[in-house]
Amino acid sequence: MSSESKVAARVWRVDGGLSEERSDQLAAEEPLEIRLLARGGPRLLLAPELGAPRELRQTVAITMRTPGHDFELAAGFLYGEGVVKSAADIAEISHCTDPAVEEDRRHNIVNVELSKERLPDLKALERHFYTTSACGVCGKASLEALHLQADRLSHRGPEVEPSVLWSLPEKLRAHQGVFAATGGLHAAGLFDSKGDLLALREDVGRHNALDKLVGWALREGRLPLDEHIVMVSGRTSFEILQKCLMARAPILCAVSAPSTLAVALAKDFGITLVGFLRGERFNVYAGVERIRVSEPARR
Amino acid sequence: MSSESKVAARVWRVDGGLSEERSDQLAAEEPLEIRLLARGGPRLLLAPELGAPRELRQTVAITMRTPGHDFELAAGFLYGEGVVKSAADIAEISHCTDPAVEEDRRHNIVNVELSKERLPDLKALERHFYTTSACGVCGKASLEALHLQADRLSHRGPEVEPSVLWSLPEKLRAHQGVFAATGGLHAAGLFDSKGDLLALREDVGRHNALDKLVGWALREGRLPLDEHIVMVSGRTSFEILQKCLMARAPILCAVSAPSTLAVALAKDFGITLVGFLRGERFNVYAGVERIRVSEPARR
Repeated sequence: MSSESKVAARVWRVDGGLSEERSDQLAAEEPLEIRLLARGGPRLLLAPELGAPRELRQTVAITMRTPGHDFELAAGFLYGEGVVKSAADIAEISHCTDPAVEEDRRHNIVNVELSKERLPDLKALERHFYTTSACGVCGKASLEALHLQADRLSHRGPEVEPSVLWSLPEKLRAHQGVFAATGGLHAAGLFDSKGDLLALREDVGRHNALDKLVGWALREGRLPLDEHIVMVSGRTSFEILQKCLMARAPILCAVSAPSTLAVALAKDFGITLVGFLRGERFNVYAGVERIRVSEPARR
Repeated sequence: MSSESKVAARVWRVDGGLSEERSDQLAAEEPLEIRLLARGGPRLLLAPELGAPRELRQTVAITMRTPGHDFELAAGFLYGEGVVKSAADIAEISHCTDPAVEEDRRHNIVNVELSKERLPDLKALERHFYTTSACGVCGKASLEALHLQADRLSHRGPEVEPSVLWSLPEKLRAHQGVFAATGGLHAAGLFDSKGDLLALREDVGRHNALDKLVGWALREGRLPLDEHIVMVSGRTSFEILQKCLMARAPILCAVSAPSTLAVALAKDFGITLVGFLRGERFNVYAGVERIRVSEPARR
Protein backbone atom coordinates (compact mmCIF):
# COMPACT_ATOMS: atom_id res chain seq x y z
CA MET A 1 0.00 0.00 0.00
CA SER A 2 1.09 3.53 -0.66
CA SER A 3 0.45 6.81 1.06
CA GLU A 4 0.08 8.72 -2.22
CA SER A 5 -3.22 10.33 -3.08
CA LYS A 6 -2.94 9.30 -6.70
CA VAL A 7 -1.31 6.28 -8.30
CA ALA A 8 -0.21 5.54 -11.86
CA ALA A 9 -1.84 2.60 -13.65
CA ARG A 10 -1.91 0.98 -17.08
CA VAL A 11 -5.29 1.13 -18.76
CA TRP A 12 -6.81 0.10 -22.09
CA ARG A 13 -8.42 3.11 -23.65
CA VAL A 14 -11.13 2.44 -26.25
CA ASP A 15 -12.33 5.27 -28.48
CA GLY A 16 -14.61 4.21 -31.30
CA GLY A 17 -12.79 1.52 -33.28
CA LEU A 18 -9.40 2.41 -31.81
CA SER A 19 -7.86 1.06 -28.66
CA GLU A 20 -4.53 1.45 -26.98
CA GLU A 21 -2.86 0.62 -23.74
CA ARG A 22 -1.66 3.73 -21.97
CA SER A 23 -0.80 5.08 -18.56
CA ASP A 24 -3.36 6.84 -16.40
CA GLN A 25 -3.72 8.21 -12.88
CA LEU A 26 -6.10 6.69 -10.33
CA ALA A 27 -7.46 8.31 -7.20
CA ALA A 28 -6.08 6.33 -4.29
CA GLU A 29 -8.50 4.55 -1.96
CA GLU A 30 -7.24 2.83 1.16
CA PRO A 31 -8.75 2.01 4.53
CA LEU A 32 -8.04 4.33 7.44
CA GLU A 33 -8.54 3.01 10.93
CA ILE A 34 -9.08 5.65 13.61
CA ARG A 35 -8.08 4.57 17.10
CA LEU A 36 -8.71 6.42 20.34
CA LEU A 37 -6.21 6.34 23.19
CA ALA A 38 -6.57 7.77 26.68
CA ARG A 39 -4.00 10.31 27.82
CA GLY A 40 -1.08 9.02 29.78
CA GLY A 41 -2.53 5.56 29.95
CA PRO A 42 -0.35 2.57 29.31
CA ARG A 43 0.51 2.58 25.62
CA LEU A 44 1.66 -0.99 25.38
CA LEU A 45 0.06 -3.99 26.96
CA LEU A 46 2.08 -7.14 27.29
CA ALA A 47 -0.54 -9.81 26.89
CA PRO A 48 1.10 -13.21 26.67
CA GLU A 49 -1.92 -14.73 24.97
CA LEU A 50 -1.62 -12.25 22.09
CA GLY A 51 1.98 -13.22 21.47
CA ALA A 52 3.24 -9.65 21.14
CA PRO A 53 2.94 -6.30 22.90
CA ARG A 54 -0.08 -4.38 21.66
CA GLU A 55 -1.31 -0.85 22.06
CA LEU A 56 -4.22 -0.27 24.38
CA ARG A 57 -6.73 1.45 22.19
CA GLN A 58 -10.23 1.59 20.88
CA THR A 59 -11.00 1.40 17.16
CA VAL A 60 -13.81 3.85 16.54
CA ALA A 61 -13.98 3.94 12.78
CA ILE A 62 -12.66 2.48 9.60
CA THR A 63 -13.29 4.48 6.49
CA MET A 64 -12.14 4.06 2.91
CA ARG A 65 -10.31 7.27 2.16
CA THR A 66 -7.77 8.86 -0.12
CA PRO A 67 -4.45 9.01 1.77
CA GLY A 68 -3.38 12.52 2.73
CA HIS A 69 -4.52 14.83 5.54
CA ASP A 70 -5.23 11.76 7.64
CA PHE A 71 -4.85 13.57 10.96
CA GLU A 72 -7.39 16.14 9.82
CA LEU A 73 -9.74 13.38 8.72
CA ALA A 74 -9.51 11.71 12.12
CA ALA A 75 -9.99 14.97 13.99
CA GLY A 76 -12.86 16.09 11.78
CA PHE A 77 -14.62 12.74 11.99
CA LEU A 78 -14.43 12.73 15.79
CA TYR A 79 -15.64 16.33 15.89
CA GLY A 80 -18.57 15.56 13.63
CA GLU A 81 -19.55 12.65 15.84
CA GLY A 82 -19.33 14.74 18.98
CA VAL A 83 -16.51 12.69 20.52
CA VAL A 84 -14.17 15.68 20.39
CA LYS A 85 -15.62 19.09 21.20
CA SER A 86 -12.54 21.31 20.84
CA ALA A 87 -8.93 21.16 19.74
CA ALA A 88 -7.97 20.96 23.42
CA ASP A 89 -9.72 17.60 23.71
CA ILE A 90 -6.98 16.09 21.57
CA ALA A 91 -3.54 15.68 23.16
CA GLU A 92 -1.82 14.22 20.12
CA ILE A 93 -2.49 12.60 16.77
CA SER A 94 0.06 10.22 15.34
CA HIS A 95 0.45 7.27 13.05
CA CYS A 96 0.31 3.81 14.50
CA THR A 97 3.45 2.34 16.00
CA ASP A 98 1.86 -0.94 17.02
CA PRO A 99 4.55 -3.59 16.56
CA ALA A 100 1.79 -6.11 15.78
CA VAL A 101 0.95 -4.19 12.60
CA GLU A 102 3.12 -4.55 9.51
CA GLU A 103 5.22 -1.44 9.02
CA ASP A 104 3.93 -0.64 5.54
CA ARG A 105 0.35 -0.54 6.78
CA ARG A 106 0.88 1.73 9.75
CA HIS A 107 0.16 4.84 7.65
CA ASN A 108 -3.38 3.52 7.41
CA ILE A 109 -3.89 3.64 11.17
CA VAL A 110 -4.14 6.92 13.06
CA ASN A 111 -3.99 7.13 16.85
CA VAL A 112 -5.87 9.98 18.45
CA GLU A 113 -4.76 10.50 22.04
CA LEU A 114 -7.41 12.28 24.03
CA SER A 115 -6.63 14.83 26.72
CA LYS A 116 -8.86 12.92 29.09
CA GLU A 117 -7.40 10.07 31.05
CA ARG A 118 -10.34 7.84 30.34
CA LEU A 119 -11.58 6.63 26.99
CA PRO A 120 -15.23 7.26 26.23
CA ASP A 121 -17.30 4.30 27.26
CA LEU A 122 -16.42 1.55 24.82
CA LYS A 123 -19.86 0.02 24.71
CA ALA A 124 -21.47 3.38 24.03
CA LEU A 125 -19.07 4.06 21.18
CA GLU A 126 -19.71 0.68 19.65
CA ARG A 127 -23.37 1.46 19.52
CA HIS A 128 -22.73 4.99 18.43
CA PHE A 129 -20.65 4.15 15.40
CA TYR A 130 -22.80 1.19 14.76
CA THR A 131 -23.41 0.80 11.11
CA THR A 132 -24.26 1.99 7.64
CA SER A 133 -24.18 0.69 4.12
CA ALA A 134 -22.24 3.68 2.90
CA CYS A 135 -23.30 7.30 2.65
CA GLY A 136 -25.32 6.56 5.68
CA VAL A 137 -25.87 7.51 9.22
CA CYS A 138 -22.75 6.95 11.16
CA GLY A 139 -23.48 6.44 14.71
CA LYS A 140 -27.15 5.65 14.87
CA ALA A 141 -27.88 2.30 16.40
CA SER A 142 -31.56 2.46 15.74
CA LEU A 143 -34.13 4.81 14.29
CA GLU A 144 -35.02 5.73 17.82
CA ALA A 145 -31.47 7.03 18.29
CA LEU A 146 -31.52 9.15 15.15
CA HIS A 147 -31.07 12.48 16.80
CA LEU A 148 -28.66 15.35 16.50
CA GLN A 149 -26.24 16.62 19.06
CA ALA A 150 -26.51 20.24 18.06
CA ASP A 151 -28.91 23.13 18.52
CA ARG A 152 -30.36 25.34 15.82
CA LEU A 153 -27.89 27.99 14.62
CA SER A 154 -28.47 31.03 16.76
CA HIS A 155 -26.26 33.40 14.78
CA ARG A 156 -27.35 35.30 11.73
CA GLY A 157 -24.12 34.68 9.82
CA PRO A 158 -23.12 36.48 6.63
CA GLU A 159 -25.46 37.83 3.99
CA VAL A 160 -24.00 37.29 0.53
CA GLU A 161 -24.57 38.45 -3.03
CA PRO A 162 -25.45 35.80 -5.62
CA SER A 163 -22.27 36.76 -7.49
CA VAL A 164 -20.21 35.54 -4.53
CA LEU A 165 -21.81 32.12 -4.86
CA TRP A 166 -21.41 32.06 -8.66
CA SER A 167 -17.65 32.35 -8.18
CA LEU A 168 -17.28 29.35 -5.89
CA PRO A 169 -17.45 26.32 -8.24
CA GLU A 170 -14.64 27.60 -10.45
CA LYS A 171 -12.44 28.31 -7.43
CA LEU A 172 -13.15 24.83 -6.11
CA ARG A 173 -12.30 23.18 -9.44
CA ALA A 174 -9.17 25.26 -9.94
CA HIS A 175 -7.69 23.92 -6.71
CA GLN A 176 -8.70 20.28 -7.08
CA GLY A 177 -5.28 18.96 -7.93
CA VAL A 178 -5.98 15.26 -7.60
CA PHE A 179 -9.35 15.46 -9.35
CA ALA A 180 -7.72 17.13 -12.33
CA ALA A 181 -5.39 14.15 -12.65
CA THR A 182 -7.85 11.35 -11.93
CA GLY A 183 -11.43 12.56 -12.36
CA GLY A 184 -12.23 10.48 -9.32
CA LEU A 185 -12.47 12.70 -6.27
CA HIS A 186 -14.96 14.71 -4.28
CA ALA A 187 -14.01 18.07 -2.84
CA ALA A 188 -15.07 20.25 0.05
CA GLY A 189 -13.99 23.88 0.21
CA LEU A 190 -14.14 26.49 2.94
CA PHE A 191 -14.73 30.09 1.86
CA ASP A 192 -15.06 33.35 3.74
CA SER A 193 -18.12 35.50 3.17
CA LYS A 194 -16.39 37.38 0.33
CA GLY A 195 -15.89 34.09 -1.51
CA ASP A 196 -12.16 33.74 -0.88
CA LEU A 197 -11.02 30.14 -0.60
CA LEU A 198 -9.45 29.33 2.78
CA ALA A 199 -8.94 25.59 2.45
CA LEU A 200 -9.88 22.70 0.18
CA ARG A 201 -9.73 18.99 0.76
CA GLU A 202 -10.29 16.06 -1.62
CA ASP A 203 -11.25 12.44 -1.07
CA VAL A 204 -12.86 9.47 -2.80
CA GLY A 205 -15.54 9.73 -0.12
CA ARG A 206 -17.44 13.00 -0.10
CA HIS A 207 -18.02 12.77 3.64
CA ASN A 208 -14.31 12.31 4.18
CA ALA A 209 -13.51 15.45 2.18
CA LEU A 210 -15.73 17.41 4.54
CA ASP A 211 -14.29 15.68 7.62
CA LYS A 212 -10.80 16.67 6.46
CA LEU A 213 -11.94 20.26 6.01
CA VAL A 214 -13.54 20.43 9.45
CA GLY A 215 -10.51 18.71 10.97
CA TRP A 216 -8.29 21.36 9.37
CA ALA A 217 -10.45 24.11 10.86
CA LEU A 218 -10.43 22.42 14.27
CA ARG A 219 -6.65 22.13 14.32
CA GLU A 220 -6.26 25.71 13.05
CA GLY A 221 -8.49 27.03 15.83
CA ARG A 222 -11.08 28.27 13.33
CA LEU A 223 -14.18 26.55 14.69
CA PRO A 224 -17.01 27.42 14.87
CA LEU A 225 -17.38 28.45 11.22
CA ASP A 226 -19.92 31.15 12.07
CA GLU A 227 -19.11 33.46 9.15
CA HIS A 228 -18.13 30.95 6.51
CA ILE A 229 -19.44 29.23 3.41
CA VAL A 230 -18.85 25.52 2.82
CA MET A 231 -19.06 24.17 -0.71
CA VAL A 232 -19.08 20.50 -1.72
CA SER A 233 -18.60 19.10 -5.20
CA GLY A 234 -21.42 16.60 -5.17
CA ARG A 235 -24.86 16.27 -3.69
CA THR A 236 -25.97 17.09 -0.16
CA SER A 237 -27.34 14.36 2.07
CA PHE A 238 -28.34 14.12 5.70
CA GLU A 239 -24.79 13.43 6.77
CA ILE A 240 -23.23 16.37 4.92
CA LEU A 241 -25.74 18.68 6.61
CA GLN A 242 -25.04 17.09 9.97
CA LYS A 243 -21.30 17.73 9.64
CA CYS A 244 -21.89 21.37 8.63
CA LEU A 245 -24.24 21.81 11.55
CA MET A 246 -21.68 20.47 14.01
CA ALA A 247 -19.14 22.94 12.59
CA ARG A 248 -21.82 25.69 12.79
CA ALA A 249 -21.40 26.72 9.16
CA PRO A 250 -24.37 28.92 8.17
CA ILE A 251 -24.20 28.48 4.37
CA LEU A 252 -23.73 25.20 2.49
CA CYS A 253 -23.49 25.13 -1.30
CA ALA A 254 -23.34 22.12 -3.61
CA VAL A 255 -22.88 21.49 -7.31
CA SER A 256 -25.73 18.99 -7.33
CA ALA A 257 -29.06 18.19 -5.70
CA PRO A 258 -29.96 17.93 -2.02
CA SER A 259 -32.06 15.13 -0.60
CA THR A 260 -35.32 15.67 1.23
CA LEU A 261 -33.66 15.04 4.57
CA ALA A 262 -30.86 17.50 3.83
CA VAL A 263 -33.47 20.18 3.15
CA ALA A 264 -35.46 19.27 6.25
CA LEU A 265 -32.35 19.46 8.41
CA ALA A 266 -31.29 22.77 6.89
CA LYS A 267 -34.72 24.25 7.64
CA ASP A 268 -34.90 22.82 11.15
CA PHE A 269 -31.45 24.03 12.14
CA GLY A 270 -31.30 27.36 10.33
CA ILE A 271 -28.72 26.56 7.67
CA THR A 272 -28.84 28.15 4.21
CA LEU A 273 -28.78 25.33 1.66
CA VAL A 274 -27.89 26.02 -1.98
CA GLY A 275 -27.90 23.38 -4.72
CA PHE A 276 -27.26 23.07 -8.46
CA LEU A 277 -24.75 25.91 -8.22
CA ARG A 278 -23.54 26.12 -11.82
CA GLY A 279 -22.63 29.20 -13.82
CA GLU A 280 -24.93 32.03 -12.73
CA ARG A 281 -27.67 29.69 -11.58
CA PHE A 282 -28.49 28.07 -8.28
CA ASN A 283 -31.42 26.95 -6.17
CA VAL A 284 -31.94 27.95 -2.56
CA TYR A 285 -33.69 25.23 -0.57
CA ALA A 286 -33.57 26.79 2.88
CA GLY A 287 -32.44 29.97 4.62
CA VAL A 288 -32.87 32.31 1.66
CA GLU A 289 -32.52 35.29 4.03
CA ARG A 290 -28.72 34.99 3.84
CA ILE A 291 -28.73 35.43 0.04
CA ARG A 292 -29.45 38.85 -1.44
CA VAL A 293 -31.93 37.69 -4.04
CA SER A 294 -34.06 40.20 -5.89
CA GLU A 295 -37.82 40.20 -5.56
CA PRO A 296 -39.51 37.28 -7.26
CA ALA A 297 -40.03 37.66 -10.97
CA ARG A 298 -42.34 35.56 -13.06
CA ARG A 299 -40.95 34.82 -16.47
CA MET B 1 -42.14 10.87 6.88
CA SER B 2 -43.33 9.59 3.54
CA SER B 3 -42.70 6.44 1.59
CA GLU B 4 -42.42 8.27 -1.74
CA SER B 5 -39.16 8.24 -3.65
CA LYS B 6 -39.51 11.88 -4.61
CA VAL B 7 -41.13 14.76 -2.84
CA ALA B 8 -42.31 18.19 -3.99
CA ALA B 9 -40.67 21.27 -2.44
CA ARG B 10 -40.68 25.04 -2.81
CA VAL B 11 -37.34 26.43 -3.89
CA TRP B 12 -35.89 29.86 -4.75
CA ARG B 13 -34.37 29.67 -8.19
CA VAL B 14 -31.71 32.27 -9.00
CA ASP B 15 -30.59 32.75 -12.60
CA GLY B 16 -28.37 35.75 -13.21
CA GLY B 17 -30.20 38.77 -11.87
CA LEU B 18 -33.56 37.02 -11.77
CA SER B 19 -34.99 35.01 -8.96
CA GLU B 20 -38.31 33.34 -8.35
CA GLU B 21 -39.87 30.95 -5.93
CA ARG B 22 -41.09 27.81 -7.66
CA SER B 23 -41.88 24.17 -7.05
CA ASP B 24 -39.30 21.46 -7.52
CA GLN B 25 -38.87 17.74 -6.90
CA LEU B 26 -36.40 16.38 -4.35
CA ALA B 27 -34.99 12.88 -4.15
CA ALA B 28 -36.26 11.37 -0.92
CA GLU B 29 -33.76 10.33 1.73
CA GLU B 30 -34.92 8.52 4.86
CA PRO B 31 -33.31 6.07 7.25
CA LEU B 32 -33.99 2.38 6.78
CA GLU B 33 -33.38 0.07 9.69
CA ILE B 34 -32.84 -3.58 8.78
CA ARG B 35 -33.74 -6.02 11.52
CA LEU B 36 -33.06 -9.75 11.58
CA LEU B 37 -35.49 -12.20 13.18
CA ALA B 38 -35.06 -15.91 13.73
CA ARG B 39 -37.63 -18.26 12.17
CA GLY B 40 -40.48 -19.36 14.33
CA GLY B 41 -39.04 -17.72 17.38
CA PRO B 42 -41.25 -15.65 19.64
CA ARG B 43 -42.13 -12.53 17.71
CA LEU B 44 -43.27 -10.52 20.67
CA LEU B 45 -41.64 -10.36 24.04
CA LEU B 46 -43.63 -9.07 26.92
CA ALA B 47 -41.03 -7.35 29.01
CA PRO B 48 -42.67 -5.48 31.84
CA GLU B 49 -39.66 -3.21 32.29
CA LEU B 50 -40.01 -1.96 28.71
CA GLY B 51 -43.60 -0.97 29.26
CA ALA B 52 -44.89 -2.49 26.05
CA PRO B 53 -44.56 -5.68 24.02
CA ARG B 54 -41.56 -5.53 21.69
CA GLU B 55 -40.35 -7.67 18.84
CA LEU B 56 -37.37 -9.89 19.49
CA ARG B 57 -34.94 -8.84 16.85
CA GLN B 58 -31.44 -7.72 15.98
CA THR B 59 -30.78 -4.43 14.22
CA VAL B 60 -28.01 -5.12 11.73
CA ALA B 61 -27.93 -1.94 9.70
CA ILE B 62 -29.28 1.53 9.35
CA THR B 63 -28.77 3.17 6.02
CA MET B 64 -29.99 6.45 4.58
CA ARG B 65 -31.89 5.42 1.49
CA THR B 66 -34.51 6.52 -0.99
CA PRO B 67 -37.78 4.79 -0.07
CA GLY B 68 -38.88 2.15 -2.54
CA HIS B 69 -37.71 -1.42 -3.12
CA ASP B 70 -36.90 -1.65 0.58
CA PHE B 71 -37.23 -5.42 0.75
CA GLU B 72 -34.76 -5.74 -2.11
CA LEU B 73 -32.39 -3.35 -0.37
CA ALA B 74 -32.51 -5.40 2.81
CA ALA B 75 -32.03 -8.69 0.95
CA GLY B 76 -29.23 -7.32 -1.21
CA PHE B 77 -27.43 -5.76 1.73
CA LEU B 78 -27.52 -9.01 3.69
CA TYR B 79 -26.37 -10.94 0.62
CA GLY B 80 -23.47 -8.57 0.04
CA GLU B 81 -22.40 -8.95 3.64
CA GLY B 82 -22.58 -12.74 3.47
CA VAL B 83 -25.33 -13.03 6.10
CA VAL B 84 -27.73 -14.47 3.53
CA LYS B 85 -26.31 -16.89 0.97
CA SER B 86 -29.41 -17.78 -1.04
CA ALA B 87 -33.06 -16.81 -1.39
CA ALA B 88 -33.93 -19.86 0.69
CA ASP B 89 -32.10 -18.37 3.68
CA ILE B 90 -34.89 -15.79 3.96
CA ALA B 91 -38.27 -16.99 5.21
CA GLU B 92 -40.05 -13.65 4.94
CA ILE B 93 -39.44 -9.93 4.60
CA SER B 94 -42.00 -7.53 5.97
CA HIS B 95 -42.40 -4.07 7.33
CA CYS B 96 -42.18 -3.53 11.06
CA THR B 97 -45.27 -4.11 13.14
CA ASP B 98 -43.62 -3.28 16.45
CA PRO B 99 -46.27 -1.56 18.55
CA ALA B 100 -43.52 0.42 20.26
CA VAL B 101 -42.75 2.19 16.97
CA GLU B 102 -45.00 5.00 15.75
CA GLU B 103 -47.13 3.80 12.87
CA ASP B 104 -45.94 6.41 10.38
CA ARG B 105 -42.33 5.35 10.84
CA ARG B 106 -42.82 1.63 10.42
CA HIS B 107 -42.21 1.83 6.67
CA ASN B 108 -38.63 2.75 7.59
CA ILE B 109 -38.04 -0.53 9.39
CA VAL B 110 -37.79 -3.83 7.54
CA ASN B 111 -37.86 -7.18 9.31
CA VAL B 112 -35.98 -9.99 7.63
CA GLU B 113 -37.02 -13.36 9.05
CA LEU B 114 -34.34 -15.94 8.46
CA SER B 115 -35.09 -19.59 7.69
CA LYS B 116 -32.78 -20.60 10.49
CA GLU B 117 -34.16 -20.85 13.97
CA ARG B 118 -31.21 -19.03 15.45
CA LEU B 119 -30.04 -15.54 14.76
CA PRO B 120 -26.43 -15.13 13.73
CA ASP B 121 -24.27 -14.47 16.76
CA LEU B 122 -25.17 -10.97 17.89
CA LYS B 123 -21.70 -10.03 19.03
CA ALA B 124 -20.17 -11.17 15.75
CA LEU B 125 -22.68 -9.11 13.80
CA GLU B 126 -22.00 -6.04 15.88
CA ARG B 127 -18.37 -6.23 15.00
CA HIS B 128 -19.13 -7.17 11.44
CA PHE B 129 -21.27 -4.14 10.65
CA TYR B 130 -19.08 -2.03 12.78
CA THR B 131 -18.56 1.30 11.20
CA THR B 132 -17.83 3.66 8.40
CA SER B 133 -17.95 7.34 7.70
CA ALA B 134 -19.91 6.77 4.53
CA CYS B 135 -18.85 5.13 1.31
CA GLY B 136 -16.72 2.99 3.51
CA VAL B 137 -16.11 -0.55 4.47
CA CYS B 138 -19.23 -1.95 5.96
CA GLY B 139 -18.50 -4.76 8.22
CA LYS B 140 -14.81 -4.47 8.84
CA ALA B 141 -14.04 -3.99 12.48
CA SER B 142 -10.37 -3.44 11.88
CA LEU B 143 -7.83 -3.49 9.12
CA GLU B 144 -6.90 -6.95 10.24
CA ALA B 145 -10.44 -8.08 9.48
CA LEU B 146 -10.49 -6.50 6.03
CA HIS B 147 -10.88 -9.67 4.08
CA LEU B 148 -13.31 -10.89 1.51
CA GLN B 149 -15.69 -13.75 1.75
CA ALA B 150 -15.50 -14.67 -1.91
CA ASP B 151 -13.16 -16.53 -4.23
CA ARG B 152 -11.80 -15.31 -7.56
CA LEU B 153 -14.34 -15.67 -10.36
CA SER B 154 -13.76 -19.06 -11.90
CA HIS B 155 -16.05 -18.60 -14.88
CA ARG B 156 -15.07 -16.95 -18.12
CA GLY B 157 -18.32 -15.02 -18.48
CA PRO B 158 -19.41 -13.22 -21.62
CA GLU B 159 -17.14 -11.61 -24.20
CA VAL B 160 -18.68 -8.39 -25.46
CA GLU B 161 -18.21 -5.94 -28.30
CA PRO B 162 -17.36 -2.34 -27.38
CA SER B 163 -20.59 -1.27 -29.08
CA VAL B 164 -22.56 -3.21 -26.48
CA LEU B 165 -20.92 -1.15 -23.74
CA TRP B 166 -21.43 2.13 -25.63
CA SER B 167 -25.17 1.52 -25.54
CA LEU B 168 -25.44 1.09 -21.78
CA PRO B 169 -25.29 4.67 -20.39
CA GLU B 170 -28.16 5.87 -22.56
CA LYS B 171 -30.31 2.87 -21.55
CA LEU B 172 -29.53 3.54 -17.92
CA ARG B 173 -30.43 7.22 -18.18
CA ALA B 174 -33.60 6.54 -20.15
CA HIS B 175 -34.97 4.44 -17.31
CA GLN B 176 -33.92 6.64 -14.40
CA GLY B 177 -37.35 7.99 -13.61
CA VAL B 178 -36.59 9.62 -10.29
CA PHE B 179 -33.26 11.06 -11.43
CA ALA B 180 -35.01 12.72 -14.36
CA ALA B 181 -37.28 14.51 -11.90
CA THR B 182 -34.76 15.36 -9.20
CA GLY B 183 -31.21 15.15 -10.56
CA GLY B 184 -30.33 13.63 -7.24
CA LEU B 185 -30.02 9.89 -7.57
CA HIS B 186 -27.52 7.19 -8.32
CA ALA B 187 -28.48 4.22 -10.44
CA ALA B 188 -27.36 0.63 -10.86
CA GLY B 189 -28.50 -1.38 -13.86
CA LEU B 190 -28.33 -5.06 -14.71
CA PHE B 191 -27.82 -5.96 -18.38
CA ASP B 192 -27.49 -9.24 -20.22
CA SER B 193 -24.47 -9.82 -22.43
CA LYS B 194 -26.30 -8.37 -25.44
CA GLY B 195 -26.79 -5.12 -23.56
CA ASP B 196 -30.50 -5.52 -22.84
CA LEU B 197 -31.59 -3.94 -19.57
CA LEU B 198 -33.06 -6.45 -17.13
CA ALA B 199 -33.51 -4.25 -14.05
CA LEU B 200 -32.60 -0.81 -12.77
CA ARG B 201 -32.67 0.59 -9.27
CA GLU B 202 -32.13 4.14 -7.99
CA ASP B 203 -31.10 5.53 -4.63
CA VAL B 204 -29.49 8.57 -3.02
CA GLY B 205 -26.73 6.18 -1.95
CA ARG B 206 -24.89 4.50 -4.78
CA HIS B 207 -24.23 1.42 -2.67
CA ASN B 208 -27.92 1.15 -1.91
CA ALA B 209 -28.81 1.25 -5.60
CA LEU B 210 -26.56 -1.77 -6.14
CA ASP B 211 -27.90 -3.52 -3.04
CA LYS B 212 -31.43 -3.09 -4.39
CA LEU B 213 -30.37 -4.52 -7.74
CA VAL B 214 -28.68 -7.55 -6.16
CA GLY B 215 -31.65 -8.00 -3.84
CA TRP B 216 -33.94 -8.03 -6.85
CA ALA B 217 -31.77 -10.68 -8.51
CA LEU B 218 -31.72 -12.74 -5.31
CA ARG B 219 -35.48 -12.68 -4.95
CA GLU B 220 -35.95 -13.45 -8.67
CA GLY B 221 -33.67 -16.47 -8.44
CA ARG B 222 -31.16 -14.93 -10.83
CA LEU B 223 -28.00 -15.17 -8.75
CA PRO B 224 -25.17 -15.74 -9.47
CA LEU B 225 -24.93 -13.12 -12.23
CA ASP B 226 -22.42 -15.21 -14.20
CA GLU B 227 -23.32 -13.89 -17.65
CA HIS B 228 -24.32 -10.35 -16.82
CA ILE B 229 -23.06 -6.79 -16.96
CA VAL B 230 -23.61 -4.39 -14.06
CA MET B 231 -23.47 -0.67 -14.71
CA VAL B 232 -23.42 2.08 -12.09
CA SER B 233 -23.97 5.78 -12.66
CA GLY B 234 -21.10 7.07 -10.56
CA ARG B 235 -17.63 6.01 -9.61
CA THR B 236 -16.43 2.58 -8.54
CA SER B 237 -14.97 2.08 -5.09
CA PHE B 238 -13.88 -0.89 -3.04
CA GLU B 239 -17.38 -1.51 -1.83
CA ILE B 240 -19.05 -1.45 -5.24
CA LEU B 241 -16.52 -4.04 -6.42
CA GLN B 242 -17.12 -6.13 -3.33
CA LYS B 243 -20.86 -6.22 -3.95
CA CYS B 244 -20.37 -7.22 -7.60
CA LEU B 245 -17.96 -9.92 -6.55
CA MET B 246 -20.43 -11.37 -4.05
CA ALA B 247 -23.05 -11.44 -6.85
CA ARG B 248 -20.43 -13.02 -9.18
CA ALA B 249 -20.94 -10.40 -11.90
CA PRO B 250 -18.02 -10.65 -14.37
CA ILE B 251 -18.28 -7.17 -15.95
CA LEU B 252 -18.75 -3.90 -14.08
CA CYS B 253 -19.07 -0.59 -15.94
CA ALA B 254 -19.22 2.93 -14.55
CA VAL B 255 -19.76 6.42 -15.90
CA SER B 256 -16.88 7.75 -13.82
CA ALA B 257 -13.51 6.82 -12.40
CA PRO B 258 -12.50 3.80 -10.32
CA SER B 259 -10.33 4.04 -7.24
CA THR B 260 -7.03 2.24 -6.84
CA LEU B 261 -8.60 -0.31 -4.54
CA ALA B 262 -11.45 -0.98 -6.96
CA VAL B 263 -8.90 -1.74 -9.67
CA ALA B 264 -6.82 -3.91 -7.35
CA LEU B 265 -9.88 -5.89 -6.32
CA ALA B 266 -11.04 -6.31 -9.92
CA LYS B 267 -7.61 -7.67 -10.88
CA ASP B 268 -7.33 -9.95 -7.87
CA PHE B 269 -10.77 -11.45 -8.31
CA GLY B 270 -11.02 -11.63 -12.09
CA ILE B 271 -13.63 -8.95 -12.73
CA THR B 272 -13.64 -6.81 -15.86
CA LEU B 273 -13.71 -3.17 -14.75
CA VAL B 274 -14.71 -0.43 -17.18
CA GLY B 275 -14.70 3.27 -16.31
CA PHE B 276 -15.44 6.64 -17.95
CA LEU B 277 -17.99 4.95 -20.22
CA ARG B 278 -19.29 7.91 -22.20
CA GLY B 279 -20.27 8.05 -25.87
CA GLU B 280 -18.00 5.67 -27.78
CA ARG B 281 -15.19 5.92 -25.27
CA PHE B 282 -14.27 3.95 -22.20
CA ASN B 283 -11.28 2.75 -20.21
CA VAL B 284 -10.68 -0.86 -19.23
CA TYR B 285 -8.84 -1.14 -15.92
CA ALA B 286 -8.90 -4.91 -15.49
CA GLY B 287 -10.06 -8.04 -17.29
CA VAL B 288 -9.73 -6.70 -20.83
CA GLU B 289 -10.06 -10.27 -22.17
CA ARG B 290 -13.87 -10.00 -21.90
CA ILE B 291 -13.95 -6.96 -24.22
CA ARG B 292 -13.32 -7.44 -27.95
CA VAL B 293 -10.88 -4.58 -28.33
CA SER B 294 -8.83 -4.24 -31.48
CA GLU B 295 -5.05 -4.49 -31.40
CA PRO B 296 -3.37 -1.51 -29.79
CA ALA B 297 -2.95 1.50 -32.03
CA ARG B 298 -0.64 4.37 -31.34
CA ARG B 299 -2.07 7.66 -32.41
